[in-house]
Amino acid sequence: MHKDQLLHLLQRVQAGELTPNDAATRLENLPFEDIGFAKIDHHRALRSSMPEVIFGLGKTPQQIAAIFSRLAASGVDVLATKSSEAAYQAVQQLCPAAEYHVLPACITLRQSTLGPEGKVAVVCAGSSDLSIADEAAITAELFGTTVTRITDVGVAGIHRLLAQRPLLHEADVVIACAGMEGALPSVIGGMVAVPVIAVPTSIGYGASLHGIAALLGMLNSCSPNISVVNIDNGFGAGYLATLIARR
Amino acid sequence: MHKDQLLHLLQRVQAGELTPNDAATRLENLPFEDIGFAKIDHHRALRSSMPEVIFGLGKTPQQIAAIFSRLAASGVDVLATKSSEAAYQAVQQLCPAAEYHVLPACITLRQSTLGPEGKVAVVCAGSSDLSIADEAAITAELFGTTVTRITDVGVAGIHRLLAQRPLLHEADVVIACAGMEGALPSVIGGMVAVPVIAVPTSIGYGASLHGIAALLGMLNSCSPNISVVNIDNGFGAGYLATLIARR
Amino acid sequence: MHKDQLLHLLQRVQAGELTPNDAATRLENLPFEDIGFAKIDHHRALRSSMPEVIFGLGKTPQQIAAIFSRLAASGVDVLATKSSEAAYQAVQQLCPAAEYHVLPACITLRQSTLGPEGKVAVVCAGSSDLSIADEAAITAELFGTTVTRITDVGVAGIHRLLAQRPLLHEADVVIACAGMEGALPSVIGGMVAVPVIAVPTSIGYGASLHGIAALLGMLNSCSPNISVVNIDNGFGAGYLATLIARR
Amino acid sequence: MHKDQLLHLLQRVQAGELTPNDAATRLENLPFEDIGFAKIDHHRALRSSMPEVIFGLGKTPQQIAAIFSRLAASGVDVLATKSSEAAYQAVQQLCPAAEYHVLPACITLRQSTLGPEGKVAVVCAGSSDLSIADEAAITAELFGTTVTRITDVGVAGIHRLLAQRPLLHEADVVIACAGMEGALPSVIGGMVAVPVIAVPTSIGYGASLHGIAALLGMLNSCSPNISVVNIDNGFGAGYLATLIARR
Amino acid sequence: MHKDQLLHLLQRVQAGELTPNDAATRLENLPFEDIGFAKIDHHRALRSSMPEVIFGLGKTPQQIAAIFSRLAASGVDVLATKSSEAAYQAVQQLCPAAEYHVLPACITLRQSTLGPEGKVAVVCAGSSDLSIADEAAITAELFGTTVTRITDVGVAGIHRLLAQRPLLHEADVVIACAGMEGALPSVIGGMVAVPVIAVPTSIGYGASLHGIAALLGMLNSCSPNISVVNIDNGFGAGYLATLIARR
Amino acid sequence: MHKDQLLHLLQRVQAGELTPNDAATRLENLPFEDIGFAKIDHHRALRSSMPEVIFGLGKTPQQIAAIFSRLAASGVDVLATKSSEAAYQAVQQLCPAAEYHVLPACITLRQSTLGPEGKVAVVCAGSSDLSIADEAAITAELFGTTVTRITDVGVAGIHRLLAQRPLLHEADVVIACAGMEGALPSVIGGMVAVPVIAVPTSIGYGASLHGIAALLGMLNSCSPNISVVNIDNGFGAGYLATLIARR
Amino acid sequence: MHKDQLLHLLQRVQAGELTPNDAATRLENLPFEDIGFAKIDHHRALRSSMPEVIFGLGKTPQQIAAIFSRLAASGVDVLATKSSEAAYQAVQQLCPAAEYHVLPACITLRQSTLGPEGKVAVVCAGSSDLSIADEAAITAELFGTTVTRITDVGVAGIHRLLAQRPLLHEADVVIACAGMEGALPSVIGGMVAVPVIAVPTSIGYGASLHGIAALLGMLNSCSPNISVVNIDNGFGAGYLATLIARR
Amino acid sequence: MHKDQLLHLLQRVQAGELTPNDAATRLENLPFEDIGFAKIDHHRALRSSMPEVIFGLGKTPQQIAAIFSRLAASGVDVLATKSSEAAYQAVQQLCPAAEYHVLPACITLRQSTLGPEGKVAVVCAGSSDLSIADEAAITAELFGTTVTRITDVGVAGIHRLLAQRPLLHEADVVIACAGMEGALPSVIGGMVAVPVIAVPTSIGYGASLHGIAALLGMLNSCSPNISVVNIDNGFGAGYLATLIARR
Repeated sequence: MHKDQLLHLLQRVQAGELTPNDAATRLENLPFEDIGFAKIDHHRALRSSMPEVIFGLGKTPQQIAAIFSRLAASGVDVLATKSSEAAYQAVQQLCPAAEYHVLPACITLRQSTLGPEGKVAVVCAGSSDLSIADEAAITAELFGTTVTRITDVGVAGIHRLLAQRPLLHEADVVIACAGMEGALPSVIGGMVAVPVIAVPTSIGYGASLHGIAALLGMLNSCSPNISVVNIDNGFGAGYLATLIARR
Repeated sequence: MHKDQLLHLLQRVQAGELTPNDAATRLENLPFEDIGFAKIDHHRALRSSMPEVIFGLGKTPQQIAAIFSRLAASGVDVLATKSSEAAYQAVQQLCPAAEYHVLPACITLRQSTLGPEGKVAVVCAGSSDLSIADEAAITAELFGTTVTRITDVGVAGIHRLLAQRPLLHEADVVIACAGMEGALPSVIGGMVAVPVIAVPTSIGYGASLHGIAALLGMLNSCSPNISVVNIDNGFGAGYLATLIARR
Repeated sequence: MHKDQLLHLLQRVQAGELTPNDAATRLENLPFEDIGFAKIDHHRALRSSMPEVIFGLGKTPQQIAAIFSRLAASGVDVLATKSSEAAYQAVQQLCPAAEYHVLPACITLRQSTLGPEGKVAVVCAGSSDLSIADEAAITAELFGTTVTRITDVGVAGIHRLLAQRPLLHEADVVIACAGMEGALPSVIGGMVAVPVIAVPTSIGYGASLHGIAALLGMLNSCSPNISVVNIDNGFGAGYLATLIARR
Repeated sequence: MHKDQLLHLLQRVQAGELTPNDAATRLENLPFEDIGFAKIDHHRALRSSMPEVIFGLGKTPQQIAAIFSRLAASGVDVLATKSSEAAYQAVQQLCPAAEYHVLPACITLRQSTLGPEGKVAVVCAGSSDLSIADEAAITAELFGTTVTRITDVGVAGIHRLLAQRPLLHEADVVIACAGMEGALPSVIGGMVAVPVIAVPTSIGYGASLHGIAALLGMLNSCSPNISVVNIDNGFGAGYLATLIARR
Repeated sequence: MHKDQLLHLLQRVQAGELTPNDAATRLENLPFEDIGFAKIDHHRALRSSMPEVIFGLGKTPQQIAAIFSRLAASGVDVLATKSSEAAYQAVQQLCPAAEYHVLPACITLRQSTLGPEGKVAVVCAGSSDLSIADEAAITAELFGTTVTRITDVGVAGIHRLLAQRPLLHEADVVIACAGMEGALPSVIGGMVAVPVIAVPTSIGYGASLHGIAALLGMLNSCSPNISVVNIDNGFGAGYLATLIARR
Repeated sequence: MHKDQLLHLLQRVQAGELTPNDAATRLENLPFEDIGFAKIDHHRALRSSMPEVIFGLGKTPQQIAAIFSRLAASGVDVLATKSSEAAYQAVQQLCPAAEYHVLPACITLRQSTLGPEGKVAVVCAGSSDLSIADEAAITAELFGTTVTRITDVGVAGIHRLLAQRPLLHEADVVIACAGMEGALPSVIGGMVAVPVIAVPTSIGYGASLHGIAALLGMLNSCSPNISVVNIDNGFGAGYLATLIARR
Repeated sequence: MHKDQLLHLLQRVQAGELTPNDAATRLENLPFEDIGFAKIDHHRALRSSMPEVIFGLGKTPQQIAAIFSRLAASGVDVLATKSSEAAYQAVQQLCPAAEYHVLPACITLRQSTLGPEGKVAVVCAGSSDLSIADEAAITAELFGTTVTRITDVGVAGIHRLLAQRPLLHEADVVIACAGMEGALPSVIGGMVAVPVIAVPTSIGYGASLHGIAALLGMLNSCSPNISVVNIDNGFGAGYLATLIARR
Repeated sequence: MHKDQLLHLLQRVQAGELTPNDAATRLENLPFEDIGFAKIDHHRALRSSMPEVIFGLGKTPQQIAAIFSRLAASGVDVLATKSSEAAYQAVQQLCPAAEYHVLPACITLRQSTLGPEGKVAVVCAGSSDLSIADEAAITAELFGTTVTRITDVGVAGIHRLLAQRPLLHEADVVIACAGMEGALPSVIGGMVAVPVIAVPTSIGYGASLHGIAALLGMLNSCSPNISVVNIDNGFGAGYLATLIARR
């Protein structure tokens, strides 16, 4: 696509429809929409097959609503993560069809009509990790996969996890969320033949260091089919799982 | 496969060929080969479609050679990472066809005859990261993918990276290795529509903290299609990329 | 017990009462109760002689009450740690006999009738460590030991600790809680002939790093009869002490 | 200037207008104004060509207002950083012409009449870094430069940044603010021929460690024209940029 | 015993055999042997039922031999940890019956004739952790327990560990050694009803941080029957396990 | 004193006024007052010439008042650090003469009549460090020294500090409080011939890491006459300075 | 320059001398020279007015010599940092005029004939910091400034630094190198009116943490005219100082 | 002294013996001797009553010998710390009376004839801490105090320490060296009425983090009469103890 645009532009120069000077300027300005405090990357959908996502942390409800509605207007599925209920209310005024998910605090708008492809299993070690697991699951569902949720299967009661083997074996990719010692992805990694995306969560206290212990554990996993995203980054795991599962 | 074995065993119980007592014992002993100082997981090839790999660090040449030859005997492709030349010599006496790769210090034996599937681009930021990138590339090639190597495209000379866009766009998955500030995966992540596996390397000095700076940078990437493996874990990245690319 | 269940199931296969297929499925589903957001591990009491405990942090009062009442229904002693007064009120509606302990913020229900076995001394360095020490003591008492509390015997006034020698010598296991420099377990470790469980607390400021200083001190103790649990993990210390003392 | 004062004082000793004893005392007391809880360094304007600045954090509104008005009385431009609205109200009563900047929470009073010299580009990676970028921009403007603001050009959408190349090329010095992985300064450093001042921001979560990840990334940049200031220190960057741009 | 000595001394004062002054002096000098550069704590055997152990790190062969022979002379079992072959040669000249253990680099002398009591299982995750596991096992054997060694049962191949369940169930206490992510103790903790002593090892690279990742993982374990000793402290684990197993 | 008590007790044994058994018990119980949740160390005044001090953090107003009044009853000067106004009100009801110091949040009661001995200079780098400097100064004054306060003499305006040289030269010991880079003690250390006690404060932001940066700077000082106390530990510095200055 | 090249290329398209297809390809391949293991950025001299520099760490002598000679061939001044004597010998065979600097271990080749512009003062705190200071000075001299070296003026003997005031006042930019507490830049920052580039060095022991203490100190400096480069990065400081001084 | 010099200089200006210009120059150059690579601070003896000390780390034998002989020539006692035997040989050629101390690796030359004043007790926790304790003791002796050495009195055998109470009570200041958990100073701090200087040593392994654990422990001590110097800084402790003991 990009190469095509470039060719087209250069053909217009050849045809004399565009001066070299104007073309030079355009070549340095690829497509994004500047709304003052932000530059919306409509181009991402072209570049990466998946739309831009709004990271809500540190943005005002008004800013979230403004970006949300611009993205919505372009027809793509829209996701705003880590957004407050106030942000949702601001969004809803502009996009009444948007939905709010309380646990992971995110706003979604489903507009595409493509059916899901690929299966993602989202597993979490304890019931306290649910909000992060939910963020991952909602992301993967919104962007077009079938998601299976498996909850409360920490490694300290290994039989609970082993009992889920059939569900795990059906997945094209597994997302494993765990706080505290973060050992869940290692065990799952040894049980399945597909990629495992490990999400450390900030659940725990004391020497959990707000998720650093789980993060380090996951990075040092002996299972070679594991990679790791940032602490509490359920969204990133869901997005990446979608890329893998839809292949 | 595993389910099949289980069914078969239970059918033998039903048929009276096996007592419940014996079956109970067998059910608790899944297949691995115990050679004293190690338990070789022949079962992994069944479980995960890819054979067990020897992590050479801290093992004697004799131990590496012993495990290597047992795995070789089972007919799979064999890989020993982080292994010295001395280890290679010990391996070579038992498996003359094994090859040594000096830069990443690993030993390989190619035995399978399946053709490659999927394309992996292995990119590294500076020429100092080459040994880790090479470990990733050799792993991905051994286990059955076509690998493209792109070298010395650090973000401080962004035009060098942009010039590689066509190669990047052909890949099914990208492995991005970088030390120092570790910014390469973020930029690549924004350029491609496929998963990017980020490998922090321990290249750098001072505040690079032996790769921790690069690791933290990669975990905090703004690109949502990135996940991270351990510092200097080229093998893990290559293994995981293979799983994704061969899908 | 587990072996017995397994044998029984296989005998039913032998007897033709169960098809191999059904048995295979059951073998992969060991006993736990799934209540949606959590999987209650009734099996733990069989496996470990002590019931599952509810870790209250990050759970809603309703979730705590739901799990609490299920466990209570199975007849075991129940403990919910780090639980708010609101959680207690929710529990109390379902289990009126439950008690609340304000200082360590935990809820208990004593149902077993076995008498205590073994003696546990719970020592704390300063009066600020009392809440953690109390969590340890309540846990050890609930699960069946006799507990002696020794308070405010920091090493900076060593004579206060030395005066407690007789009490320490009666214990089968000592729990030593300390924040700040965390030196108490080292000194006690040299005074007694029994295991010492060290509990770092997050008491302190500045370079105490929320308990990390105490934790590191305890891990580096010169006394060989010391092991360490997580910062502020009074429950874990009490649980472990019970296992040792009741032997 | 300082040398002149010294010479003048010694000439007065030579001339007998001042005793050696008095001169010795004066030589040890260089000019600053002591207002009890603070010593105002009027001398700094002489020493460094730029006036002292009030660091508002941890000062009461009354303290800020007191120092502000003393500095204002000396005729210089005045800046109070990290100051609350309450502090502004206290300042305004003494200096009605003072202005408040909500986003970066700083108070300014422009009194000098010198025109701006030199151009500073203030770039920020995401819209969440705006408050720190604004602190940098306001500082550089107040002290006499022309500032260009470039917003929301994170490296994960590199075309947005490349589109700003003309603006960047006009700058005498670039300030690059980024949280999360902090890769922006490295990329800009490779695009321009002028000094780049990198400002890590505390934007991010999990492994961003409140800006430490961005800080480490910037310190390890491969671009040699980069130096770094403290996390969230927009003021320092603006001050330093002014020194460079006005040369 | 100590109380007895004290009583005896006071009875001699009562009997006029000892002046108060002399008694006061003696009361401040409890029994240890001062050999200049070290004070040998013969009293420990009385106090703690187990003899003093020599920590070899940083001591010269001559110092180790000197302390070793003094302890040997008192008839107890002697252990010197982290000691070089040179140290062993020096010891052997004074105590020909001493033995050297190459892998864990420790020297032992068995002199007591008491039979073993209690069973200790020493489990290690990978074959690289063997030296630390061996230090634990040798310590526990020397001081009087029966030890079972279980090797190479990392959690990434969980079936290898599950196959060891019968051996684990026989133990009175389990020592679990693991480097990298350190998840082994958590899984074992859920499988057994006895105390588990977790030993993080410094095996690993990159983000293993020389054992810190494993240490943090173990401290954050969800299994409540786990406590932790210092990184690579096999001796401490063996000593503590003996105290528990011999009860 | 302690030796005398011991001799006296032994003389009573010799005289038959005390049985050896009773003496043995008493010898193990040195004087402190047990008030349930705390053991007040009246003995400290004997042992160290200075009374016990109440560390208020984490204690209730009632606990502070109870300990305060017991200490007051023994006639010594009393100090409670890090105590709220509520704690002061509780103290005041029992000890009307107690005073409250708002900035450092401490309560004092002066009862001794000894005049001050020795001079302590308390220096702080910025006006934000005042509360910690004040805690140090109040402690040193209460326990009997003459204190000189020098404020706002950070090293970035070195002439302000040099102007205080005469005051510094009069001191028997200097307390230097500084946050941020913590360089003040190094410079003062080179200016004076007496011990300098460095107090890192938690003033700063970003890479100050709540005082860790200042702490590390002070520990690495090139001036050999410097030692360091915990972050924000003004009390400790004041106490130690008193010990030195009163010699 | 870059804009000119672009315009020229587009004018050739307009003129029909170049097809759009060819132009599109060229636009994506900016000038660098690919020599297999490295991509030499000849373009940097155009982009940034200063040539690319070889970072020698982790490169073989042959690699260094190869890159060095290619850069030399283009006529620019060449610098290879952190390079061994062996590397120098390899370079010398290809470029006999190259010089070696033992202390900072770098290789230079001066080819340009432009006279120096601007003055740089390179100050170091102790004689142990000399090698880093030398790297900075050699860099700044090679790229065209006049350098003044000031040595051994640590803040613990402040008069030694104050005596250098005249030299400092002549500089257009100051580079301040210091290990241990790293306080030198703060004091210099308050003495001069120009930018100060702070270079933390890894000199020190214990809590210096290989330069981290100095780095943190410099980042937290109260002087607003300071920015910081990586630990031991003398080259970066010299390069940046040149950019500022030559303006 | 300094004031006198200043007055004398100003009197010469008054008397017309010196021009103001010359005086201004001299006033900015206080007395130190510049030997090229170092500036010897002869002035320190005037300023601080104790001579400058040579920190040997990172200096060549020739540099150490050169500085040593200059200091020796001025008649003061000379100390070079952390210096190799080679350095000693170079020193000995210039100063035959210099002595070498193998354990702490320092060189001394005693030239002053003042008798010792004050008593310093140097205590170390284990025999492995001896080299650091020795550095402290040699420093304190050289600069004029009487030193008592107490060795191997770690807190895990508290009776060994209690037995030393009489020696401790005689000291004017105590230096307490300890690695591992670093608890010794806390216990001693509670036993004595004088200042305690705590020296963390790098003895230990694993979670001792090269002395950081001991350092943190000491900073968090509950005993208020403790201050801390850098890890392994025996010299600093000895120097500071001398300042206190000689008062």
